[in-house]
Amino acid sequence: MVKIGVCLSGCGFLDGSEIHEATLSLYHLDRHGVETHVFAPDKPQKDVVDHRTGQAVPGESRNVLSEGARIARGVIEPLSALRTQELDGLILPGGYGVAKNLCGFAEKGVEGEVLPELQQILRELHSAAKPIGAICISPVLVAMAFRGTEVAPLLTIGEDPSTAQAIEALGGRHMVRGVEEIALDSENRIVSTPAYMYDARISEVAVGIGKLVDQVLALTQG
Amino acid sequence: MVKIGVCLSGCGFLDGSEIHEATLSLYHLDRHGVETHVFAPDKPQKDVVDHRTGQAVPGESRNVLSEGARIARGVIEPLSALRTQELDGLILPGGYGVAKNLCGFAEKGVEGEVLPELQQILRELHSAAKPIGAICISPVLVAMAFRGTEVAPLLTIGEDPSTAQAIEALGGRHMVRGVEEIALDSENRIVSTPAYMYDARISEVAVGIGKLVDQVLALTQG
Repeated sequence: MVKIGVCLSGCGFLDGSEIHEATLSLYHLDRHGVETHVFAPDKPQKDVVDHRTGQAVPGESRNVLSEGARIARGVIEPLSALRTQELDGLILPGGYGVAKNLCGFAEKGVEGEVLPELQQILRELHSAAKPIGAICISPVLVAMAFRGTEVAPLLTIGEDPSTAQAIEALGGRHMVRGVEEIALDSENRIVSTPAYMYDARISEVAVGIGKLVDQVLALTQG
Repeated sequence: MVKIGVCLSGCGFLDGSEIHEATLSLYHLDRHGVETHVFAPDKPQKDVVDHRTGQAVPGESRNVLSEGARIARGVIEPLSALRTQELDGLILPGGYGVAKNLCGFAEKGVEGEVLPELQQILRELHSAAKPIGAICISPVLVAMAFRGTEVAPLLTIGEDPSTAQAIEALGGRHMVRGVEEIALDSENRIVSTPAYMYDARISEVAVGIGKLVDQVLALTQG
């Protein structure tokens, strides 16, 4: 049975994982009979945002792993427990949590760093020719994880010019894609889809993520 | 365009809305081109549960509307703003939040009460022959909302005996259904599906909710 990891960054698009993207990733993987393993780092969120108002809540603290567990229905492991040799690939849903809790893009832009354990995981998967699926803003993290290496991943974040420029500045290559489309980097086995980088409908996002999952699974076959 | 309300009870199955059920409801509604309006009561949650450990977190407080906004991507209104004459039907996803924040079933069993504004909404919808879709534990709330009336809704919560007995004690009628099935009460225009009342896969839950949405939409056509 194919085993795919899903790395979450919290629960809610303004301070954690985008819930629809995470849920639809799990749905499409399960539809294919994949054994899914959900992970998140055991660390405090960068911030907590009231999703009704869009404002940060001063003084409130939440844990990325405990919040990710809401999406995973409690079946989740700390990212430190992820062993790339036990997985056939990894999917990264989006949400600001990717840029706030999994890397420093929200705070420092292209000067930010990827969480070291996640950077190592992504590089190990790449070296082992195992596929990576990156949704929404996650392609920026993927480019950041391979900054300074010979790997120049081909990625999409849709069509937002400044985010596309960030990917290029990090050493990646960007291509414009629609919400129901994917960018496929066959050589590096990296697949991406823009999802809510567009002001999109959930049914459109579901189509893009469905294609991403299809392609990630195809790449596990060699 | 058909307009369907979705009433949330927080964000996370142990203290709020079951995230997959809520997301898949929105997905299936959107797939049909429905205009969806998401609501939640503006009140504190009964409790906050760490979904990693399953334990309540003493002293922590969260607001049902602000947490529901995580699932709704910020596009949500307080339940007090719901006008039944502006909607063609309502769907209630499950999660313990239904039994903790929308009615008193978790604390008081069949002696509990439904949040008065929600009880009025459900009775108004029924009087107007507009459909109600109830997922997972929500059928208990529906039965409770019609307790003491001449309405005896036909409902399913799967096959759990004690919860089925609660529905009967509240004046409803229970029928056993599988996770990929629905119970249809044509006379009262109430549709239900067990979802995570079973230890089910997300792809199975998605099938049941897809059928529920299909049937709710069919009932809006008269």
